[in-house]
Amino acid sequence: MSDVVRIGMLGCGTVGQGVLRILHETAGTIERATGHRIEVARVLVRDLQAERPGVDPAVLTTDPEDILGDDSIDIVVEVMGGVDPTHEWLLRALGHGTSVVTANKQLLARFGPELLAAAEEGSSELRFEASVCAAIPVIKVLRESLLAAEVDSVMGIVNGTTNYILSEMRRSGMSYADALSQAQDLGYAEADPTEDVGGADAAAKMAILSSIAFHTRVLIDDVPYSGIDALQSDDVDIAHELGFVMKLLGVARLLDGAVSVRVHPALVPADHPLASVSGADNAVLLESSMVRQIMLVGPGAGGTETASAVVSDVLSILGSRPGSFLGGALADAGRPMAPEGSLESAFYLRLEVADQPGVLARISSVLGESGVSILTVLQRGEGESARLVMILHRGPESQVQDAIGRLRDMPEVREEPVVITVVGSGEAGR
Amino acid sequence: MSDVVRIGMLGCGTVGQGVLRILHETAGTIERATGHRIEVARVLVRDLQAERPGVDPAVLTTDPEDILGDDSIDIVVEVMGGVDPTHEWLLRALGHGTSVVTANKQLLARFGPELLAAAEEGSSELRFEASVCAAIPVIKVLRESLLAAEVDSVMGIVNGTTNYILSEMRRSGMSYADALSQAQDLGYAEADPTEDVGGADAAAKMAILSSIAFHTRVLIDDVPYSGIDALQSDDVDIAHELGFVMKLLGVARLLDGAVSVRVHPALVPADHPLASVSGADNAVLLESSMVRQIMLVGPGAGGTETASAVVSDVLSILGSRPGSFLGGALADAGRPMAPEGSLESAFYLRLEVADQPGVLARISSVLGESGVSILTVLQRGEGESARLVMILHRGPESQVQDAIGRLRDMPEVREEPVVITVVGSGEAGR
Repeated sequence: MSDVVRIGMLGCGTVGQGVLRILHETAGTIERATGHRIEVARVLVRDLQAERPGVDPAVLTTDPEDILGDDSIDIVVEVMGGVDPTHEWLLRALGHGTSVVTANKQLLARFGPELLAAAEEGSSELRFEASVCAAIPVIKVLRESLLAAEVDSVMGIVNGTTNYILSEMRRSGMSYADALSQAQDLGYAEADPTEDVGGADAAAKMAILSSIAFHTRVLIDDVPYSGIDALQSDDVDIAHELGFVMKLLGVARLLDGAVSVRVHPALVPADHPLASVSGADNAVLLESSMVRQIMLVGPGAGGTETASAVVSDVLSILGSRPGSFLGGALADAGRPMAPEGSLESAFYLRLEVADQPGVLARISSVLGESGVSILTVLQRGEGESARLVMILHRGPESQVQDAIGRLRDMPEVREEPVVITVVGSGEAGR
Repeated sequence: MSDVVRIGMLGCGTVGQGVLRILHETAGTIERATGHRIEVARVLVRDLQAERPGVDPAVLTTDPEDILGDDSIDIVVEVMGGVDPTHEWLLRALGHGTSVVTANKQLLARFGPELLAAAEEGSSELRFEASVCAAIPVIKVLRESLLAAEVDSVMGIVNGTTNYILSEMRRSGMSYADALSQAQDLGYAEADPTEDVGGADAAAKMAILSSIAFHTRVLIDDVPYSGIDALQSDDVDIAHELGFVMKLLGVARLLDGAVSVRVHPALVPADHPLASVSGADNAVLLESSMVRQIMLVGPGAGGTETASAVVSDVLSILGSRPGSFLGGALADAGRPMAPEGSLESAFYLRLEVADQPGVLARISSVLGESGVSILTVLQRGEGESARLVMILHRGPESQVQDAIGRLRDMPEVREEPVVITVVGSGEAGR
């Protein structure tokens, strides 16, 4: 790469303008450290007239060919978002040997393996730190520092909106609806929060993280997810009483060489490293027999934070030998996905039951017949009905599902049972 | 670099044997990911006969010339420790264009800038992730991910022994001596714990971290330090009562372009990210206006963990363009050290005073005359003497030192005042 590195940027919204600002403000540091001067040659925009403080209008264009068709561009920076036409555009750039930095989570979660393969074929580089957890450098750490550390578990709070809502529900006893509305007022949640609160956003991030951690191919469609939109604040409170904290967790594990990735609400013990990550922060906990547990915590969103990650990726390309680390991302592409129900876990179970003598005994015996054993029981009468909360010992998920099916059919059980995975150290599970 | 990369290793103790084991076990992953096969060509040992399970005796040598004089060696891995003769040996390797990976904290904290300059001159690479916090990839994150993020604060729990001791003092109310003795029984503290409990170990690590974070030259002699050996469990308990947790902290900051680095016991608010890092874990909190706060947490020691960091560094060299990121480490070498007393901070102050009328008023007025204001006071009579604990508002350190000097001279003040820095968010300080 020559001393002057020419960047073509696709998109110039909040993140794009942040990238331009950081490149401008830190040009001296970058040149001293890397020996390269970065020149932003072209920036693709939709509307040439829009307000963009500090951006040189001479570099703006509305024609993608000015970037994709220009062989003098060294690195394409994609901050426009969306899958179409970015998918085709980035494949084209990578195939022609132009390196790509992208912040596009949806694109990576759908077409990551294809893009990595295109980079390998085109002898170009693909970087996407900003697509997951903004400036928390989890992709770099997994892809480079822990490449040979045999990471076998990635657990993460990878959605700031839900973490903010759950933190507020716990802190102030607010309902889900009130906490969501407060998050919207403060800018932590979108007007349409479905992607975040339903778990889809976290699922896309976990697809990317697990691909890199396990050197394999995981797409968003491989990640079953559920969100926090159906959670009762009762469960948040009871969990707290029992010494647990409710989180929306992404959990990715290698089980006998097979890959299991999921997103769901989960209880973690109050002394678990992820329990203290509150507010809109994100955190990713990486486990391997070689490094035990490493956790990275920080803001998982924000224009400047995301732009900072994009700039790091540009610098990472400047500092890398062509093709380095690329193979690793697909080295074990043949790993199967673990079959449903093959996981072992502990569970929180809440039942609303008729307050009659012998109910607890009958429920315990149904659980026992399914091979499920009870660690803790909390029973509270409330007039005609009673509330029964149990923490179930770690065991095969299929057994718990079997037991729930049978409990659901019992006449004494008055509402749909609430079942929440318990994650973390100690007696109640891994 | 050719397809086969030849390693010469200096030393073969716990870490060295771990490096050999990891390279052997993950050879397939490394080759698929990087395109390189790593061959351990030579290993320098003192005693050829010592027990080294799984190590091929044919590669062992007692003659350093077999490594330092062999031009076919691509990377020297130094895991023997000590400053002499490693200092000369590594300078020689770097000067001849041979890259170096080292786990040697003392060497880096004393001669880091000289070694980095030798690498730059010799067009070789120097990596030292394992020298600080074992497998927590804080050097890589600072040097690469946050190169252009303008990090202006690095706070860390970078010594596991002291964190274990303080955690136990808090958890069980043990005295310092008992907690130390328990740490020694469990292998968390050395038979001679001076380096750890006195703060020198943390000071060496903070010299390395602040050099990389601020792209400047900080040596261990630039880092004033105090340890936890004089702490009273009373102070740990009182701090806890007031909502703080006691930690041995390394604190490095950029203040108007000047560098301030220190190691000392400090109180952090219970809801501060560093407060929940307990046991022998390490954590580093990095702050910059671009990424806000990023924290990395994990085991800061351990043979396999350290070996894993050494292997990451070898892979990092394989993946890097020659000379990349090197300049950055010394780019702002001319930064001055901040003058003593120029810091602002909040403080914890404990005084044992005569239990007489008007003492609190006289002490408050001495503090007020020095410009120091009080946030919280806790007073407890104990017969003839009373204990006075105060949290002092954030202010210039020089003012607090001035006030302490005057309090020390008051006849009512019966023992040496205890002053502990308060770090962290909220009213009580940054």
